[in-house]
Amino acid sequence: MTQCPFCSLAVGEEKDLLVLRTPNVLVVPALKQRRLNRGQMLILPRVHVTRMIDAEPSLIQELYTVAGRVSMAVRQAFDSTGATLFQNDDAPDQEIIHLHIHVVPRRARDDFKLPDPTIEELSREERQHQALALQRALN
Amino acid sequence: MTQCPFCSLAVGEEKDLLVLRTPNVLVVPALKQRRLNRGQMLILPRVHVTRMIDAEPSLIQELYTVAGRVSMAVRQAFDSTGATLFQNDDAPDQEIIHLHIHVVPRRARDDFKLPDPTIEELSREERQHQALALQRALN
Repeated sequence: MTQCPFCSLAVGEEKDLLVLRTPNVLVVPALKQRRLNRGQMLILPRVHVTRMIDAEPSLIQELYTVAGRVSMAVRQAFDSTGATLFQNDDAPDQEIIHLHIHVVPRRARDDFKLPDPTIEELSREERQHQALALQRALN
Repeated sequence: MTQCPFCSLAVGEEKDLLVLRTPNVLVVPALKQRRLNRGQMLILPRVHVTRMIDAEPSLIQELYTVAGRVSMAVRQAFDSTGATLFQNDDAPDQEIIHLHIHVVPRRARDDFKLPDPTIEELSREERQHQALALQRALN
């Protein structure tokens, strides 16, 4: 394991959780998810960039184009009507300091809130199932 | 006024609120803001696009590159330590159906939450002041 958990993903660890890999971007299920918004995904660069301003415009394009595709695919994979995307950029409560975009599947009456104290860690098996479901929807 | 409030901005109405205009993107202060996160900005395309997937990759690059610049500038203009970016993409509680990114200035102990029932409309004068403060920080 390298020190940054997202850099570990980038060098090929935890392949069982990998949804998609584009030249510079990875997609994996989020470790912690709300019960009413299952299927939350993270879009992240393979290179260790911490702030938006330090990402090359071409990388920003790749990250958010992939996020847009994931936002569509979660509708099919997790029966949502849309998504909310969010991203911390040096926010005080940010947990992992490696640029990443959250894509949260949304549906009516899901009582979405951020932060949510009832958010919980998913088992590895559940995240593997989500990764497969999203792969099918993306293909 | 055209029917979509963001298309009205795009055709040059409400110039007094305009922070920045790039070839395809506008920046304006959000109408509704949290008391503890004053300086919230919206980044939006001049063209009427509603979903991420319908935005050209070059437009996505311009939108989020500008969002990254705004995320840095709010630190100087509104004394924040960073920002949280969020965006609805067909989310059930989305209010304006024209693609837009929220950039929320963040600082320690701001008790940030989304949605926040205590969010309030700012006066036009306050938003004009914010637009000027952000313009200075961007230049």
